[in-house]
Amino acid sequence: MKTVGFAAYDPKKPLAPYAFERRGLRENDVAMEILYCGVCHSDLHTARNDWGWSYYPIVPGHEIVGRVTQVGNQVSRYKVGDHVAVGCMVDSCQECDQCKKGEEQLCREGNTGTYAGYDRFTKEPTQGGYSKHLVVREEFCLRMPEGLDLSKAAPLLCAGITTWSPLKTWNVGPGSRVGVIGLGGLGHMAVKLAVGLGADVTVLSRSNAKEADALALGASRLLVSADSDAMAQAHDHFDLIIDTVPVRHDITPYMPLLDVDATLVLVGQVGPMEEFNTVPLLLGRRRVAGSPIGGIRETQEMLDFCAEKNILPDCEMIRMDEINAAFERMEKADVRYRFVIDMASLEAPAAV
Amino acid sequence: MKTVGFAAYDPKKPLAPYAFERRGLRENDVAMEILYCGVCHSDLHTARNDWGWSYYPIVPGHEIVGRVTQVGNQVSRYKVGDHVAVGCMVDSCQECDQCKKGEEQLCREGNTGTYAGYDRFTKEPTQGGYSKHLVVREEFCLRMPEGLDLSKAAPLLCAGITTWSPLKTWNVGPGSRVGVIGLGGLGHMAVKLAVGLGADVTVLSRSNAKEADALALGASRLLVSADSDAMAQAHDHFDLIIDTVPVRHDITPYMPLLDVDATLVLVGQVGPMEEFNTVPLLLGRRRVAGSPIGGIRETQEMLDFCAEKNILPDCEMIRMDEINAAFERMEKADVRYRFVIDMASLEAPAAV
Repeated sequence: MKTVGFAAYDPKKPLAPYAFERRGLRENDVAMEILYCGVCHSDLHTARNDWGWSYYPIVPGHEIVGRVTQVGNQVSRYKVGDHVAVGCMVDSCQECDQCKKGEEQLCREGNTGTYAGYDRFTKEPTQGGYSKHLVVREEFCLRMPEGLDLSKAAPLLCAGITTWSPLKTWNVGPGSRVGVIGLGGLGHMAVKLAVGLGADVTVLSRSNAKEADALALGASRLLVSADSDAMAQAHDHFDLIIDTVPVRHDITPYMPLLDVDATLVLVGQVGPMEEFNTVPLLLGRRRVAGSPIGGIRETQEMLDFCAEKNILPDCEMIRMDEINAAFERMEKADVRYRFVIDMASLEAPAAV
Repeated sequence: MKTVGFAAYDPKKPLAPYAFERRGLRENDVAMEILYCGVCHSDLHTARNDWGWSYYPIVPGHEIVGRVTQVGNQVSRYKVGDHVAVGCMVDSCQECDQCKKGEEQLCREGNTGTYAGYDRFTKEPTQGGYSKHLVVREEFCLRMPEGLDLSKAAPLLCAGITTWSPLKTWNVGPGSRVGVIGLGGLGHMAVKLAVGLGADVTVLSRSNAKEADALALGASRLLVSADSDAMAQAHDHFDLIIDTVPVRHDITPYMPLLDVDATLVLVGQVGPMEEFNTVPLLLGRRRVAGSPIGGIRETQEMLDFCAEKNILPDCEMIRMDEINAAFERMEKADVRYRFVIDMASLEAPAAV
């Protein structure tokens, strides 16, 4: 299938149009026209090869909402015209203990990324959602529930599930005391989802500049991390802190805020951490963890939960050809809170 | 009560004899003659004020085995002649949620250290077990079970409980896959206790020099951390890794050895850690935690378990006046695996 998208051709150049082929439909494949695609910080990291695993050209995008255009003859769950979604992965072994538990993101053989991955059969590089069409195996296709605004839902597929999964892993529910560090794409979803689950949510921020935003998202308060008195008063206060900051930073100041046996979970920072001090870990039996996206079943649950509770990301819609400007603004945290590409702005190739 | 001990008078000088007063017996106090006291790395850190909370003179020692000489009139659990023990703490608030759960080590007001603490009533500095006598409130006095060799049991009170508590917190039992980093005082107890609980235990060490020792302690194998092939083969292998190394080190190489949702628990390293890489945390939903000693009820359970299973530390007995040489050897890790001071080597003061 011929399609078109925007790709990085080089770590240092802006994204530019790219015509390429999607694979022919396998019997368990779903083909879709992409309607919307969210813009994730990982897209930028990958375009620039910050993590060293990019190839070129590479088409980013793993927050994908589309409409089914064709299905393989073994596909049972979807039919032409259905609204569907694809997140950060498009395949896994389906055989290991993790896949069988529905934790494909933790597949023992490694899951196949929506981009920066390699097809398990052809070994060809995968290409993401900054494009007009996508082909994906049925098991990695999600159903968009009725009533969820398609134009805003795309960021749920990465920002949503990446914050939902730790909320579920650490059993957040009514009355849980949840802290959220960083109020960007992931952070604002962490607040909305935790509030939706009934938690008492605090946003941690360097200044009180985002206080009104935090309250508007449903948080009970904003805690200024530069205010040492306020930080001292919050010692032992949290059951879970979700740290969404996507750049290197020091977690030591946040550790005493955790209650006994409570966890600070990193979902944004990839790479070497600032050295941190073990004393608050040891004295309070506190914990640090990481968490990657979530499984397919969990992602579907999150989509259904968002439809039921009417939880949607705050999005700013852009055209495909505005992506490079959007990357620049994202780097300056100048977005509330997620860019979404309207794929109607990208002309389809002559023959599909 | 007049007593005598060995104290640090200065961070840089050797320990020397020290005559001092123990408090008069309160109604819920137990007085004991100390028979044996283990030598912990924390004693050395405190003598040298490495952690900045020492006062001088200070009497170290928090692995204490003794015989009751006197009891206050409200004491119900102990009588003169009983064999008893005291560990790292001698008091706590007894009112907070943690104390009520039997987790006095996590007391919201802070527990009172056996040394380097301050009496909750008089505010006087506490003095530890490198001495002839001790007075302690009944609630922080443990019963030495019948059949446990008193001359070897002292290190259970810190090295034992510090490794037992995480084994219990993280539900180690038959078949659990446990790794132990560092084969010193804590590490050798971690191996013995985990084996006693039915776990499959691997010692991680920089070379295979300690392989025979590891196997003799009950470990199934030694994994050489400098052997990158062996380390790669052990990815995802462990349910719990207990890291007993008491000095600054990098935990990054050990993180991929943890299975999904598994934990590396620090029990030895106090202070800033080497920067570590978040990638194995994020990709495997792995965890890092700290754990401090254990509660009183848990400590008693551990003592009873050791008596039932005949688990004892490997000790080298020294005289009180050999303590400075012992500190020097401990710094070079030249001890298998714990020094114990025979307090009979210290002459009692003329009038007690």
